[in-house]
Formats: sequence, structure tokens, C-alpha cells
Amino acid sequence: MTLLLALAAAQAAPAAPKPLTPSEIVAQSPATAWREIRPEDLMVIDYQGGGRTIIELAPAFAPVHVANIRALAGAGYWNGASIYRVQDNYVTQWGVNEGGPAVPASVVKKPPAEYDRPLRGLTPRPLGYSDAYAPRVGHALGWPVAWNPATGRANLTHCYGMVGVGRDMAPDTGMGGELYAVIGHAPRHLDRNIALVGRLVEGIENMSALPRGTEALGIYKAGTVARMIAAVRLASAMPEAERPRFQAMNTASATFSSYVRARANRKDAFFNIPSGGVDLCNAPVPVRRTPAPSSSR
Amino acid sequence: MTLLLALAAAQAAPAAPKPLTPSEIVAQSPATAWREIRPEDLMVIDYQGGGRTIIELAPAFAPVHVANIRALAGAGYWNGASIYRVQDNYVTQWGVNEGGPAVPASVVKKPPAEYDRPLRGLTPRPLGYSDAYAPRVGHALGWPVAWNPATGRANLTHCYGMVGVGRDMAPDTGMGGELYAVIGHAPRHLDRNIALVGRLVEGIENMSALPRGTEALGIYKAGTVARMIAAVRLASAMPEAERPRFQAMNTASATFSSYVRARANRKDAFFNIPSGGVDLCNAPVPVRRTPAPSSSR
Repeated sequence: MTLLLALAAAQAAPAAPKPLTPSEIVAQSPATAWREIRPEDLMVIDYQGGGRTIIELAPAFAPVHVANIRALAGAGYWNGASIYRVQDNYVTQWGVNEGGPAVPASVVKKPPAEYDRPLRGLTPRPLGYSDAYAPRVGHALGWPVAWNPATGRANLTHCYGMVGVGRDMAPDTGMGGELYAVIGHAPRHLDRNIALVGRLVEGIENMSALPRGTEALGIYKAGTVARMIAAVRLASAMPEAERPRFQAMNTASATFSSYVRARANRKDAFFNIPSGGVDLCNAPVPVRRTPAPSSSR
Repeated sequence: MTLLLALAAAQAAPAAPKPLTPSEIVAQSPATAWREIRPEDLMVIDYQGGGRTIIELAPAFAPVHVANIRALAGAGYWNGASIYRVQDNYVTQWGVNEGGPAVPASVVKKPPAEYDRPLRGLTPRPLGYSDAYAPRVGHALGWPVAWNPATGRANLTHCYGMVGVGRDMAPDTGMGGELYAVIGHAPRHLDRNIALVGRLVEGIENMSALPRGTEALGIYKAGTVARMIAAVRLASAMPEAERPRFQAMNTASATFSSYVRARANRKDAFFNIPSGGVDLCNAPVPVRRTPAPSSSR
């Protein structure tokens, strides 16, 4: 009798719902799964000849460097600067040649080595899969992070699109006037050796699709540049109607957990064998243009 | 007395030798650390308007697909083909539109799913650091591989620059007429779901630095292409004097072990904190132009 009932139930049951893909999870996410990026944390790079790249800054991880960068943008420091280094499978770098514009007085010339920070206050979501570089990895405050419970320290990680501060040899940390973006496989060996200050959230192709520099380290030949920068501004310094608006997924949300699980277990029609795991930099935090009020869920 | 002797010895001892960087290890490697890539395993893509990309094929991992690709190159199948897909942080893909040239009779239209192979016969060198995707990773026959001791199966992995065969939905495996190269962070979730058949060994920037396609999946708008291919030939089909010659580092060599250790423990002047680990795709197998006989070591 039990068997028959079970069979009847099985016959009546609808087909198991098709698991959602990562992009379906993002598309169907509730508004509560997102946080608005503050306009003082959005930096807009406009290029000569057109095109734009937008960066989200990470003041919770490198406050002095980020304050420097905001001050430099506010002073128009990079207006007329160039992208002068594009190294394949590594980084695109931009900044100002020697003898560039004056640095605002508020800029800290020798910032502290903000290569990591206290774990305390982050309460990261563990990724749940192993990592070759750090005892623990996961996400905190919308960012990819690594941490070490033994030392109580946490750091941002060099994933695709992350932005850091160029520097000379230690103990120099870089003032913030030269920045780079990761355009290749995550160079995680740079973690804890450089100040990471943000990530590209739009227009990454304006940095990743440039011709590679032909000199050592992908530097452009003297007298040539990859692209000239017209202006770099914080969104907070733009007229309100012109400001770009973005949201990052809340990495403490249930939606983000579903997204990571789906990335680790792809069951789209295309996939035969879900990998059962995902590495930190292959689970990028979703970022989107803020939906218009009428279309927000 | 012992103390004095020890002090004297310390004073006399030369400074500890500076550890070699990964590139110094490659530059100083003995000739025995390299294997010549066979001309039938080198495929040369020449573009209309100039430029070249060279691929090393991996017949030990996907013999039927590689035989197909050799036959297609031999028949001039891709002469006049296009790069029609460039998706940022993912892949560049090329091939022939419907109604392209005839496929040689030797081509297997429905190849077996060469997504993995027996571990037996590979004796891989374990990387020594953990991986989010597979129980074991390392290198075998000069290639990055993952394997599962429980199943006795091994597979090539989707690292930067690896080349695979485009396909439709399973059980289709792709005939070999459409190929893609990884141009971003390793999409390891594709491992064991696609036939990997080789890697880019030169001219990767001719694929990675192209404008990204604007349609879904990075496909180019109808009527446009990223780049036209003039000819694809095996090096073995070229006049001997024109053949490019390459060597891949022998991944069973002591030199390769030193190289991996150095990549996991960067001690250049630039680095403050060696990571103590490296992930599989961040330890790419060194490949070089074969040195002229006089300059070989």
C-alpha cells in the first residue's frame, strides 16, 4: 500500500525544476540582494576619443590609499594621463609621468602598507572550496578576500579586474598616482604585496583589449601610449543626473550563496560533468547598473 | 672557542646566494630540461594583413580530435576563415561558417568524447598545492593536468592560452572545425566538458587583444569579424627552412620543479611575502623558440 501510494505520488509529481544557471539567479534576484555603490566609491575614467571605464573603490580595505586616490581625482591629477603598460595575461597600468601635475596637500606621500587588514569586522562568507594561496578564502562586504584565522588578518585578492596601486621596491607602497588593473589569470602571488584599492565594474574591455606593449613588462615604446585619459572623476563630483549608478551583490545574501553553488555545479544543458567546486576568482561578485525604480523587484 | 670559530666561519662565508626568480631559472636551464615540439604538433595561423599565432597540439590527450585538426589544416580548411567571437575574460573563437569548404574524408564527423583519458601512462608531477576543481593537479608530458586516483582518469585543464574544440550540446563533441583559446581567468568549470587539444605558444596577443564582440557570448555583429585568417598550416607541411621551432620544458625535469617552487615562493626584491603556494594555471609550462645550436647549453 505504501509502495503504491509512493508510486502514485511519483507519477503525480511534476518534473524536478531545472536548476537555475548563475545568470538566471542574478537576473531573478530580489532587490534586497544588492547594495548601492556610494558615489564617492565610483571613479569614472573617460578616454580621449571616447570610451569609459568605471571603478569601484574599496575604502574598507585600503582607506589611506583610497583617500589619496579620491583627492587625486578631485584635483584632476589624471586628466591627460596615459595608459602606458599593457602586459598580456597580467596587467594594464596607467598614471602620470614624472613632472606631472602637483599633488594635493591632503595626499599622504608614504601611505602605510595597506596590503591586509584585521579580519575583525568582516565576517566573510567562506567560499567552501580550497585555495592554493591562503588558508581561507571567500567574500566580505562584496569583495573577494583571503584570510588567516591564526593571524586574524584578511586581504583583498588579485582576481580579474581588480585594481591596485603601482609601487617601486618595498617599503614603498605607492602613493596612488599609478594604478593597474588585472587583465589575465589571477596573479594571486601579488596578494599581500601590493595595496588593492578596487575593481573595474564597467568598460574593462577598454583596458583588456588594448594592444600589448612591446617593451619589457608590457611597457609601451617611448613616445607611444595605449590610450590617453581625458578625465578621471568621482561620481560624487559629477552632476547628479550624469552620475552612473551601480549595485554590487550583497555577498552575505542567500542569493549570493545560490550563485556560488550554481557556479560550482553547472547543470546547464551544455555541461555533462559539474565540477563540484569553483575557485575564488571564478566566482566574481555580480555588479550591475542600478535598475530604474519601476523595474526594480 | 666553538663560538669564535663559528663567528669566523660566518664572517668568511659569502652572502647566501640570492634565490633565482622563475625567469632566471628558465634562462639558466640546461638543454636537457627541454623537449623539442614535433613539427606535426605545431599549427601555424597566419592572418590576413599580417600577424601569426602558433599552437602546440596535444595528441596524447585527444588523438581523434587532433587527427581531425591535422587533416583540416592539411586540406586548407581554415584558409579564409574568421575569428568571429571574442568574449572578455573568457575565450576567442574561430572557424568556418556553414557552407564552408568540404571536410576531408579522413575526418571523423562524430569523434569520441576525448574530455579525459586514462591516468595510466602519464605519471604526472603533482603540483603540491590544493585545487578547487580536482582531487589532484599537476603536470604531465609538458601539460597542465588534473586527475582522480579513484577513477584512474586524467584531463587537460582550461588554463590561459589553452585551445579547445567548440561544440553544440552534448553528446556532440565538435568535429574540430571550430576552435577556441582561453583569454581570461582559467574557466576550469569547462574541464571534462570539452575536448582540449592544445595551447597557444606564440602570438597569443593576436587573439587576446582583439576588440570584444558586442553580441551575446562575445559574438561579433553579423557581417563583421575580429580578424580574417589567411592560412592555417602544420609546421610539418612547411618548407623546412620556414618552420618555426619550439621547445616545451620537460615537466618531469628538476628544472621544472625548481621553477614551480620559485613561482610559489617569490623572493624577488619586489616581494615582501611569498605566497607559499601557486595554483595550477599560475605555473604555466615554459615554452621557447628552439635556441640556435651554438647558443644551446
